[in-house]
Amino acid sequence: MKNIGQLHGVGLGPGATDLMSVRADRLIRGAKHIAFFRKMGSKGHAWTIASPLLSRDVNEIALEYPVTTEIKLTDPRYNEVLSEFYANCCNRLKEYLGNGEDVVVLCEGDPFFYGSFMHLHSRLANFARIQVVPATTGMSGAWTATGQPITWGDDVLTVLMGTMPKEELVYQMNKTDALVIMKIGKNYQKVKAALKEANLFNRAWSVHYATMENQKVLKLSDYLSEEMPYFGIILVHGTGRRP
Amino acid sequence: MKNIGQLHGVGLGPGATDLMSVRADRLIRGAKHIAFFRKMGSKGHAWTIASPLLSRDVNEIALEYPVTTEIKLTDPRYNEVLSEFYANCCNRLKEYLGNGEDVVVLCEGDPFFYGSFMHLHSRLANFARIQVVPATTGMSGAWTATGQPITWGDDVLTVLMGTMPKEELVYQMNKTDALVIMKIGKNYQKVKAALKEANLFNRAWSVHYATMENQKVLKLSDYLSEEMPYFGIILVHGTGRRP
Repeated sequence: MKNIGQLHGVGLGPGATDLMSVRADRLIRGAKHIAFFRKMGSKGHAWTIASPLLSRDVNEIALEYPVTTEIKLTDPRYNEVLSEFYANCCNRLKEYLGNGEDVVVLCEGDPFFYGSFMHLHSRLANFARIQVVPATTGMSGAWTATGQPITWGDDVLTVLMGTMPKEELVYQMNKTDALVIMKIGKNYQKVKAALKEANLFNRAWSVHYATMENQKVLKLSDYLSEEMPYFGIILVHGTGRRP
Repeated sequence: MKNIGQLHGVGLGPGATDLMSVRADRLIRGAKHIAFFRKMGSKGHAWTIASPLLSRDVNEIALEYPVTTEIKLTDPRYNEVLSEFYANCCNRLKEYLGNGEDVVVLCEGDPFFYGSFMHLHSRLANFARIQVVPATTGMSGAWTATGQPITWGDDVLTVLMGTMPKEELVYQMNKTDALVIMKIGKNYQKVKAALKEANLFNRAWSVHYATMENQKVLKLSDYLSEEMPYFGIILVHGTGRRP
């Protein structure tokens, strides 16, 4: 009987290839099979970060999202379509794992902090051994890019998703010291209105493509577009105790 | 006139040496002068993580905290003593920087996420160029150790310090989906009471020394000591949307 291969969920960090961990670098260079999510028709952000490290004859398993923004989150079909997609992804990975082959899944940011890998992890945990390699989050890359610490002393940090209702955003914003908002994209006008209502707009920063060549860091009041890239991050720094 | 050297604030990640970034690894191996905080009488956690990488003739600049728990946070002397300490640390680093020598400061976790480096950064920002290398946080190491994602879908994540008053802890716990608590130590009984009041105690996990050889992961209900190490982390996982 064949042994089952091992699945590695490898965090790539915020974007610069040399900000991934030494462990991740070693696993990716040595990988025979790599899998990664991407939007249909693009090379994918995860692949792009890891590509300088891939061996010439690596087998690339591209997992292409069937939907990203075409179906609304509130539509029950959204979960159905994604659920079927993740099940199909797992079936593809099981072919390799079942043949005793290890597979490295490239994960943007940290695998267990939002993101897609967890939907493979929960479905494959009983099938194969899984090793998860933690990584620098996109938000760490973003606050480092602003040149200021995100939290001091006993500051409370809250991480919010731009997909939340405006009232919930304002409620959460009103009771935190430091703030990170992700998944903004088309929700930007709502997020902006919430920040104004919570009197945080003038302290907020927008960071896009943190740690990468095209990194953009702006006070949010200087950000003039109507929308924001999906991977843009908004930050409000804490102001806690500083001896 | 001599050029001023560059200061590098290098994040070491959660503890395992190979979880630091490739960039951090390269900077530490190449460093002529390294500085690091430590408790008097100990080698220090930061030094221990980095020690396998240090060149044989590296110059070690140990910055030893004058107090840790002897003076209470609420005592005004606490801030005074620490402020003088950080000023002295900066004077020591300025001797090297002013002679055109680069200095690498070893920072546990991520340099701009709580931690001591920021107190050097704010004091030296006008003196020298400073490069900060973001890293995997201790909390990422901790949730990875539990084998479960910390956040799903639109979960709100809140990071709290055990040093906060109990009522504030309960208030914050009641309005989040996922939770991280740090700086626990002698505050453990208060934190535990707050978790019970917020009905989160039975879902909480304690993680000590995440990613290191002596890593300990327990349901909090199985953690029987009266106190917790200062670097212990308590987690409550989110339960959000999962297709």
